[in-house]
Amino acid sequence: MTLSTQPYKGARDFYPEDMRLQKAMFAHMREVAERFGYEEYTAPILEPTELYLAKGNQEIIDNETYTFKDRGDRMVTIRTEMTPTVSRMVAGRRQELAYPLRWYSIPNLWRYERPQRGRLREFWQPNFDLFGVEGVEGDHEVILVADQIMKSFGAKADEYSIQISSRKLIDELFGSYLGLDHTQRDTLIRLVDHMKKMEHSEFIAQADALLTPSQREAGILDSLQQLLKARRLEDLPAGFDMNPHVLRLKQLLSLLRENHVKNCIFDMTLMRGFDYYTDMVFEVFDTDPENNRSMFGGGRYDGLVGLFGVEPVPTVGFAMGDATLQNFLESHELLPKLHSETDAYAILIGDNMYEKAQHAIMELRKMGLNVAVDSTGRKLEKQIRTAVKKSIPYVIFIGEAELASEQFKLRDLSTGVEETHGPQRIVSIVRDRRHASKLPTEDDSEDDGDLLEI
Amino acid sequence: MTLSTQPYKGARDFYPEDMRLQKAMFAHMREVAERFGYEEYTAPILEPTELYLAKGNQEIIDNETYTFKDRGDRMVTIRTEMTPTVSRMVAGRRQELAYPLRWYSIPNLWRYERPQRGRLREFWQPNFDLFGVEGVEGDHEVILVADQIMKSFGAKADEYSIQISSRKLIDELFGSYLGLDHTQRDTLIRLVDHMKKMEHSEFIAQADALLTPSQREAGILDSLQQLLKARRLEDLPAGFDMNPHVLRLKQLLSLLRENHVKNCIFDMTLMRGFDYYTDMVFEVFDTDPENNRSMFGGGRYDGLVGLFGVEPVPTVGFAMGDATLQNFLESHELLPKLHSETDAYAILIGDNMYEKAQHAIMELRKMGLNVAVDSTGRKLEKQIRTAVKKSIPYVIFIGEAELASEQFKLRDLSTGVEETHGPQRIVSIVRDRRHASKLPTEDDSEDDGDLLEI
Repeated sequence: MTLSTQPYKGARDFYPEDMRLQKAMFAHMREVAERFGYEEYTAPILEPTELYLAKGNQEIIDNETYTFKDRGDRMVTIRTEMTPTVSRMVAGRRQELAYPLRWYSIPNLWRYERPQRGRLREFWQPNFDLFGVEGVEGDHEVILVADQIMKSFGAKADEYSIQISSRKLIDELFGSYLGLDHTQRDTLIRLVDHMKKMEHSEFIAQADALLTPSQREAGILDSLQQLLKARRLEDLPAGFDMNPHVLRLKQLLSLLRENHVKNCIFDMTLMRGFDYYTDMVFEVFDTDPENNRSMFGGGRYDGLVGLFGVEPVPTVGFAMGDATLQNFLESHELLPKLHSETDAYAILIGDNMYEKAQHAIMELRKMGLNVAVDSTGRKLEKQIRTAVKKSIPYVIFIGEAELASEQFKLRDLSTGVEETHGPQRIVSIVRDRRHASKLPTEDDSEDDGDLLEI
Repeated sequence: MTLSTQPYKGARDFYPEDMRLQKAMFAHMREVAERFGYEEYTAPILEPTELYLAKGNQEIIDNETYTFKDRGDRMVTIRTEMTPTVSRMVAGRRQELAYPLRWYSIPNLWRYERPQRGRLREFWQPNFDLFGVEGVEGDHEVILVADQIMKSFGAKADEYSIQISSRKLIDELFGSYLGLDHTQRDTLIRLVDHMKKMEHSEFIAQADALLTPSQREAGILDSLQQLLKARRLEDLPAGFDMNPHVLRLKQLLSLLRENHVKNCIFDMTLMRGFDYYTDMVFEVFDTDPENNRSMFGGGRYDGLVGLFGVEPVPTVGFAMGDATLQNFLESHELLPKLHSETDAYAILIGDNMYEKAQHAIMELRKMGLNVAVDSTGRKLEKQIRTAVKKSIPYVIFIGEAELASEQFKLRDLSTGVEETHGPQRIVSIVRDRRHASKLPTEDDSEDDGDLLEI
């Protein structure tokens, strides 16, 4: 029997060139998060299934997760999102931790679904959460971090938009303003959440169907349609200009504009799927007309930590999937060009040079150079081709004469130019090149004001 | 029902302070590996169970792994080691890849076992492999990488030893020299592998039991005992001094000594559990008499890639578990002292300062400082205590007067000293401290020659 070389369906192998890209993406996120004082954590990839039952339901667990019984008869689930896990961890040390907590993690997650573009069974989803800040400052900070991450990749303000809403405001608009009861409100929230994916007439029919005859007579459907047309907080019905949730959203938008985040807008139709959001929600959209869709988002979930029987902690956070982000960077031509981490390929000239060259090669490494040595003894041309294929920028030739004179020939593989230098000079040439080829992050075509230099 | 805050049994939550240590350990490994030209890869945590059946057996899969049927009726296993996966990946692109390949990965792995010190159900096990080098140069390189990793943590040559053997040599010694057949040889290999864990008399009895009467009469048991006493290659029976496997081991030891690896020795009794090793094997031992045990190891496995129906690739590599390494670093007092990644905690003086302070805080971040802002509005003393508890080294106070003068009070939380400076000066003070508190890696008490500066 021949074994298959394919990875498990819907999951990806990351060969070094794929890994390099993933690492570069995550390095940006890490650096931005740490600039704001976020600290990394992680947790086991297996969780007791109960954790997901608390705010999910058995059907989703059965159909969309990797859940199985362990050898001790415990039901376990491969984590499908990080929010229940991080809430568990905070609850586990509720009293000892020093708030506010700024935590991030870059977990891989698994969902059992039909693999398609941007939807995989295994994916990575960096999570950023702020625990212990009740006020609008918390909402502001996490959106600012999300925006800074986008900018750190070189994304321009017109290439994405940040849409913001408030669950509490929606509850008041659908509840006390439209006069819907709890069940109607929850149904309508789910309906609006799917609105953009259905025909408008279908949406209207379904919205109408959830009203009582007296609500229909009172013209609630018209009021709803009017409401959904609001493009700014100012478009909301009279009397809402002093509503506390409206004021808080206004303050949030103003704080963000203060930080040069110009592409954030109130979006009446933004609901976010998860049940656990309690107040502000936001989503970042790709504005490309070819690919106009939600990339990632988050919001405030003040109730989750309390599920573990401890005093609740106000929490706000977001998570961004790796595949969606990568699609965005590809389609906007923002993917960084990445070299090998290896600076130079040492090629040995003559026989039995491996042992003799050790000292010189280790000296280069000690000076900070990443040097791979070709120890195969193949023809020189073959060795050089190997370096090119690996996208290693330089070759260093080492033979008896070079060791005696401590002068080595350095070939720049992109230009073919050869120079002969001592080890110190070689290290400085190669290091200069390495620094010059770092990811482009400075936004030089637009004055974005608050761009971090990563 | 109250949800448990405990992680799944035998697996660990990594709170930021735990994560910091894990990241520091892995950062050392990454840097050393990259100095030698190794490139990082990764792969899905779920693998088709067939992958482990190829060189394992059903019983181990049933009893010691997390194996289950997915919703499409495929048997899948949470990876238990990385070697089958990396072999699969290399086989999958056998023709396209440019050899030699130097690959490393830092996977988490799962084994179903009774949790105990240094043995967990979920653990991380960095893997380093070199594909495409048949000669002793490959054996030399991976052991040198392992040694450099140990040294990068500050481990001294007398705190660990590197024991080396050769499966091919053992096969000849047990086969043509002692005259054992294949089955006897394999049994004896397993017996010697467990020798140190049993009474000597028990070992002798079991060794005797596997011999035939005529072998007993020929004094094979005495020859075996004599053989196992060999402490150096020179102690092997006459005639083995020109044996090609002995010569290769001699060359390997000599190459390593050339690189100042003084603590490597030939060990006749070193077998290594896995079936897939084909030639050189090595293990790194903790020499602490309190904890004298194998920490990690590896060897040459030239046959695995070929199992996938492609042309075989000579391969040599090793893997080191995170928990074992951490135990070693703890017991030898080599654990680095780690600060928070956050450089400074911004404390706002006066009311409604959050919005006004944004610009100044973002300026500090743009200059490279990791700044967390306390937006809780609590009493100053509480905010300062929070910074101390988070082991953030500095506090920056920001009020109206500071913003107007662009001069901020900086308090060093370790000394209590306060100084007032402009943003530039603050950044340079804090950054100097950050660099000064990097991990100690320079080995200053011993001349180890080839130590990399990480």
